[in-house]
Order: sequence, then C-alpha cells, then structure tokens
Amino acid sequence: MMLYDCSTAPSPRRVRIFLAEKGLTLPTVQVDLRGGEQFTPAFRAMNPGCTVPVLALDSGAAISDIIAICRYIEELHPEPALMGRDAEERALIECWVRRIEWDGIYAIQEAFRNSMPGLEHRALPGPLPLEQIPALAERGRLRARHFLAWLDTRLADHAFVGGAAFTIADISAMVTVDFAARAKLDPPEHLRHLRRWHQDVSSRPSAKA
Amino acid sequence: MMLYDCSTAPSPRRVRIFLAEKGLTLPTVQVDLRGGEQFTPAFRAMNPGCTVPVLALDSGAAISDIIAICRYIEELHPEPALMGRDAEERALIECWVRRIEWDGIYAIQEAFRNSMPGLEHRALPGPLPLEQIPALAERGRLRARHFLAWLDTRLADHAFVGGAAFTIADISAMVTVDFAARAKLDPPEHLRHLRRWHQDVSSRPSAKA
Repeated sequence: MMLYDCSTAPSPRRVRIFLAEKGLTLPTVQVDLRGGEQFTPAFRAMNPGCTVPVLALDSGAAISDIIAICRYIEELHPEPALMGRDAEERALIECWVRRIEWDGIYAIQEAFRNSMPGLEHRALPGPLPLEQIPALAERGRLRARHFLAWLDTRLADHAFVGGAAFTIADISAMVTVDFAARAKLDPPEHLRHLRRWHQDVSSRPSAKA
Repeated sequence: MMLYDCSTAPSPRRVRIFLAEKGLTLPTVQVDLRGGEQFTPAFRAMNPGCTVPVLALDSGAAISDIIAICRYIEELHPEPALMGRDAEERALIECWVRRIEWDGIYAIQEAFRNSMPGLEHRALPGPLPLEQIPALAERGRLRARHFLAWLDTRLADHAFVGGAAFTIADISAMVTVDFAARAKLDPPEHLRHLRRWHQDVSSRPSAKA
C-alpha cells in the first residue's frame, strides 16, 4: 500500500488525520502539486482525475477519493470507529460529510480558486484548464459564510458534528474551517460554538497530521 | 420507513432504480418540488437542505443523501450487491460514483440551473437563493461534454462502469446521461460505447423506476 499525499493541501489532510486517529502510518509519497506533478503521464496513469490523495493498493488498483480511502481503512481497521457503529449511524455520518463537502469545501474552493493569483486557468481541480469566474468567487464567499453560521448552530447543542462522538464529520469540518482561513474566510468571533468545537478538535494530536 | 421522492427529478430516481434492482418497494410520499414544498417548515424540519430524496427512519432520523440512503439499504438487504462485494470493490465503486457526480451530475447541473428559465434565483439546489451565472452555464456544458467522452472511453473495454457487474455506478451514470439529455447535452452519435451501454442499462426493468 502506498499513500500519495501533499503535505500542504487540505484534501489529503483529511486522510492523514483519519490515519492518525487510527494510530496507523502508511508508506507515503509526496506529490509536488505546485510543480504540476499531478499532470505527469505517470501520475495520470494512476489517477486520471489528477488529484491527491490516492491510495495505491498492492493489487494494482488505486483509490482516488478521500472518503473511499477512509472507508477502506475503516473496514480493515474498525477501531476506533470514525464512520459510525451501525447502519443508521453510518448513513447519518455520511450525510454530514456530504453536507460539509457540498456547502463547505466546494463553496470555499469556489471562492479560493476563482480569485487566487496563480490559479487563473485552474478554477477547478482536475485535468481540464478552466478560467476563473469572478462572480463564482463572490458566490463561494456568500455560501461559505452561510456554511460557517450553519455549523455554529449545529454545534450549539452537540459536542461534535455527528453528535456525541468524534468522527470523520469532525475531521472534514475542521479541515474545511482551516481551509476557509486560508481563503480569508475565518469564522467570525460571534460563532462561539464553532470556535469552542474548533479549539477542541484542533487540540487533538491528530490535528497536526 | 418512508421515502420522500419526486417522480420527475433525477436525484431520487437513483434511489428508485436502486430499490427496483433489489426488488424492494418502500412507502413513498411525493414532494411537490415545482410547488416549492421542499421549502415548507415541515419539510425543512426533516431536511434543512431542502432536497429529495430523504429516507425517514422509524427512529425519527432522516437520511438526506442519495448514496447514504443506498448504502443503508445495501446493509439491510445485501443481495444483489450493488456497491461492491469486498472492501476494495466498495472503495473503487465509490470512486466511480464520486467521479460521475463531480464531473457529470454537477457539471450538467451547472449548465442546466444557470440557464433555465424559471430557475433564475435557484442556481443551486438548497435553501439559499442564488442568481444564475451565464459563464457557469457555459463551463458546465464544456465539462459535461468532456464527461460524456470520458465515459465512452471507460466503456470501450468494460461492460459496465465499475467493470464486469452492474452497480450503483451504472445507476448514477444512466441517470446522469438522461439528465444531460434534458439539458440538451445528448451524447453525440460517435460515442458508440456509451450508446451501447446506455441501451443495455436502459432496457433493464429497473430503468423505468
């Protein structure tokens, strides 16, 4: 097994934190995203989507989606459970993760990639060069602010995003909030439930991964 | 258990086909999306994301994500397996589904929702009114054409999207191709592998669901 990673990118960080919570380490290759290594023929042969993380298996197959990688690891190493303990919990945690991705990560990505100098032709990850759309950056900022306010409401009466236990929903939300800060979308001071939770989850040793 | 559905919408169709392949029927409520029923307080109390499908459980919980609903059903009724038979297969099928969603469904949705009369303030599903961005409609069309060409290549030497067996990846891709046609993005004639596969999967009884 080999994990293709990039230590400065938010997406593979979700997998790194997941592994750290499991107490696992995997042999890892750093992919030079800034240098465009994800667009080389060798990398494309493994993941035509040109993204990290990728988990290359001994069978020759490559898992190129964050949640699919985590689910695969969860099946092999069920403890501590980070994706739910029964069918209902697993389904509900999947809903939280999807919501965090759709309303959070993709919104911040819209804001970031459609405004950042250096990403002029890279408004989406992947092999297709796409021009920035300034109105989309604006829409992303609006959506991201709504997401952060929603997350604060959710955390008003729950210790963690999924409820009483730390799960992959918290990992996803923490990475999202930290990515938001990089896009100058820090949570405002008055979102105190979000800030309490963010401090909690950021103090776990896994957060350094 | 109660399935909240809308018989004219592409998203819940993925769940309906999934159920039909399992030979299952669930008690179902039709939600009047055109009449805005998804924005009523009663519906929002169940799914603040204002989307269908939703699977309401007897516990009071509601599963509001398509794939989470399917996974829950797969756990309760494992046969026929539609999401893979072991950890590796499950991970790879999840990658195909994500790719179909990201490069296919979301691209077509960009094209459709940013250009369709009547959706002027509804450029994304969900509770937030968002204006159409014409450049995003254009980008969606470009991405959708790339997606269809990619799908054709994938199907050149595989009977089904995931390989030798019909899975949720085929359900997702079929619904995507049919949604593309509604957005006037029919697959061009020369994509003959895609057309062969589409004819195959559309002739299954479940496709009528």
